[in-house]
Amino acid sequence: MGKVSQKNNDTEENTTEFNLVRVKSTWKCKLPQKVNKDTVDCVSPAKIYESITETGTTWTVVSPIIFTYKVTETQGLLDPSNNTLLLGHITDPQQLEDIKISNKPIRRFIVIDQEVFKIYGIKLTKYLEVNNVVYKILALPTTEENKSMEMALNILNEVNNFSLDRRMEPIIAIGGGVCLDIVGLAASLYRRRTPYIRVPTTLLSYIDASVGAKTGVNFANCKNKLGAYIPPAAAFLDLSFIQTVSRRHISNGLAEMLKMALMKHRSLFELLEKHGCMLLDTKFQVDNSLYGHSSLKAASQATRIAITTMLEELAPNLWEDDLNRLVDFGHLISPPLEMKVLPALLHGEAVNIDMSYMVYVSQESGLLTEEEKQRIISCMVGLELPVWHEECTLELIEKSLQDRLKHSGGLVRMPLPVGLGQAEIFNNISYEILHRAYKKWCDELSISSDGNCDP
Amino acid sequence: MGKVSQKNNDTEENTTEFNLVRVKSTWKCKLPQKVNKDTVDCVSPAKIYESITETGTTWTVVSPIIFTYKVTETQGLLDPSNNTLLLGHITDPQQLEDIKISNKPIRRFIVIDQEVFKIYGIKLTKYLEVNNVVYKILALPTTEENKSMEMALNILNEVNNFSLDRRMEPIIAIGGGVCLDIVGLAASLYRRRTPYIRVPTTLLSYIDASVGAKTGVNFANCKNKLGAYIPPAAAFLDLSFIQTVSRRHISNGLAEMLKMALMKHRSLFELLEKHGCMLLDTKFQVDNSLYGHSSLKAASQATRIAITTMLEELAPNLWEDDLNRLVDFGHLISPPLEMKVLPALLHGEAVNIDMSYMVYVSQESGLLTEEEKQRIISCMVGLELPVWHEECTLELIEKSLQDRLKHSGGLVRMPLPVGLGQAEIFNNISYEILHRAYKKWCDELSISSDGNCDP
Repeated sequence: MGKVSQKNNDTEENTTEFNLVRVKSTWKCKLPQKVNKDTVDCVSPAKIYESITETGTTWTVVSPIIFTYKVTETQGLLDPSNNTLLLGHITDPQQLEDIKISNKPIRRFIVIDQEVFKIYGIKLTKYLEVNNVVYKILALPTTEENKSMEMALNILNEVNNFSLDRRMEPIIAIGGGVCLDIVGLAASLYRRRTPYIRVPTTLLSYIDASVGAKTGVNFANCKNKLGAYIPPAAAFLDLSFIQTVSRRHISNGLAEMLKMALMKHRSLFELLEKHGCMLLDTKFQVDNSLYGHSSLKAASQATRIAITTMLEELAPNLWEDDLNRLVDFGHLISPPLEMKVLPALLHGEAVNIDMSYMVYVSQESGLLTEEEKQRIISCMVGLELPVWHEECTLELIEKSLQDRLKHSGGLVRMPLPVGLGQAEIFNNISYEILHRAYKKWCDELSISSDGNCDP
Repeated sequence: MGKVSQKNNDTEENTTEFNLVRVKSTWKCKLPQKVNKDTVDCVSPAKIYESITETGTTWTVVSPIIFTYKVTETQGLLDPSNNTLLLGHITDPQQLEDIKISNKPIRRFIVIDQEVFKIYGIKLTKYLEVNNVVYKILALPTTEENKSMEMALNILNEVNNFSLDRRMEPIIAIGGGVCLDIVGLAASLYRRRTPYIRVPTTLLSYIDASVGAKTGVNFANCKNKLGAYIPPAAAFLDLSFIQTVSRRHISNGLAEMLKMALMKHRSLFELLEKHGCMLLDTKFQVDNSLYGHSSLKAASQATRIAITTMLEELAPNLWEDDLNRLVDFGHLISPPLEMKVLPALLHGEAVNIDMSYMVYVSQESGLLTEEEKQRIISCMVGLELPVWHEECTLELIEKSLQDRLKHSGGLVRMPLPVGLGQAEIFNNISYEILHRAYKKWCDELSISSDGNCDP
């Protein structure tokens, strides 16, 4: 290997920093000391550094892009008098006013999961008709098996035929996480970025996919191998969609809630421990004679804590530049497990099996007491989540962790619970501990992987 | 249309601002006045605003992502002793040191245009062998007709087979603009963002594609309809690649240089007016007996001004959020023209035909004198660029501008030269002027569209 031919640290003496100022329509480089804010229209937060050496010039561009997105809880999203779905993403009051006084009908392209369309199609169509919207609804089978670039391109073909205005007409996605992820990617690609809106209809996507910036499709049999970090303009959350979700899919969502509980929030863990069965029974709805008001309270508390704790972790690390991420808990082993047994395990179920094993690793490492471990596993069982799977072999675990090493800058960065509702990132868990934990995990759980409702 | 159900301006009283602070592995929301910089590890530039109304809660996430990229002029990029290609993108001196003392061979995945590979394949392979690189070279026919998602997916399949470390192993693209755009998109999609490096081998990509953040592929017969705004980690510019480019492709690159000259830089215009023919003859190289040192001086001045003026416009507007862009000059009519006659016109040729017409619009609007117009057209002819095309009909022009209206927030935002080397954005050019300019443009130029070398 030869010597480095150029040194371009910003701190070097031969580097000149330029600000960028706009005069009329033109941007100009200016030395910082020459910028006079009275005579120029605008100073950009971007900078250019010019560094000249004997072999040539290097220009280093530093340009911040600010992402802003809303996560909004609402009720009656498809009630024709509620215009959140059509206008709730707009932040500029003037723009909102202009649209409301304009005679031009609103145009919207909507992608909806076809199972969701079967339930809400008539209501959605009526909503659009009443609001005089020019619309196209595309109902698609957005299953994990169909989560491909091919489906994204199908959507893009239809978007293009609809002749969408990419500045003013956000694409609306209504469905579970798969639907929201595919549409998010398609929108992000269209004309290099078209705004989109997420409307989650499953518990899992309500507290997970809707909250963050990630989009993606599966590729080469790997989960979300292709994608982008482009947040939606807005996510509109309406808990009433959850009432038509199957009990198994409620459990599925509870797994990601439990993740946030174990990583960051002891009270959320205790809430799930105590009220998990009620949340399963009531499907996060209020209208239930057995539990009454306490079900609504538990449901809104649980979703609220799950969303805010998730936002806390995502907002400072929207593009995942920091590789130490608590939200990766349950996501080290589960992606290949989920793909391997597809469609046997739902995403949250695979995540829970991963978390269950990791709880054993924690306990084996002395980070959790035996009692704490038992409480967590009991809580999982109470949430009717699988805590073990025969395809989650030691070989798969070791391979997953080796892959993780490779894609996380040489460190495994394993989030592990240290007590209930707290966690840290570990890089030094020995193979011996992984093996011992695996053995104990199989010994204790391999026969009792079916959940029941007695906490 | 019903009333807006929620008002969520940040300025409202019911909105709470939260900072995000990290304590150990965990991020926490904190009121700004409660942030104590002594007791927390880190305060993020991201913020969360929580706004509570009777219908629910809105969380607004504001998260800046800082893009940093280098544009580096170098010489002898494929000289085995020059390690710019392998290490020039690294900004952290410690990381650079670690790699140099490490025994692990460097791994690189390289996509190269197949015509470029025919010329430089042996040299490139030798470079990689001498530097002990574990590599895969993928040579592809990266023509405008092949610029598709299909080719991007082919690249991604091979990238995946190579088992790339997306944090440490940037994908290298070597070729013209089409190659750099496709590879940039493929890399940006892989694991939601893999760094890539641009090595332009044409004059056009040297001063255009290499400088910015845009990637893309054609879709539904529209130029760059799908893509992303993700800059490369670095662009490495070596003028010696240009020596093997055909004379027509030199002209092609000169068109984008002329664009920057007309928009922002009178001296660059005068340089192209005076030395255009020499630059075509010498292909931006020094070793030429007829012109000697002056050719090098003109070549390096011209490329340097083209790059810095382009960077000035791109850096403050990397994601094109500001729709008023001088760099769009020549790009309002040319995209459909280029696609319509594919492969008859090269990109710069189509851009020049667009610019030529717009110069007539400028003159007809009183923004350019007849003499200035004549000088510009003569300069274009001197650069051996087409100034008129029969497929550039008034119908195509009108349709392009209507499309532009639609995708630019309702304004046409037409950059027009106002004198030599200055420009402004106009929204109020009448159809009458467009028609008159078109008639005059056809009358004066329809028979003389072949260039010649007498300025």
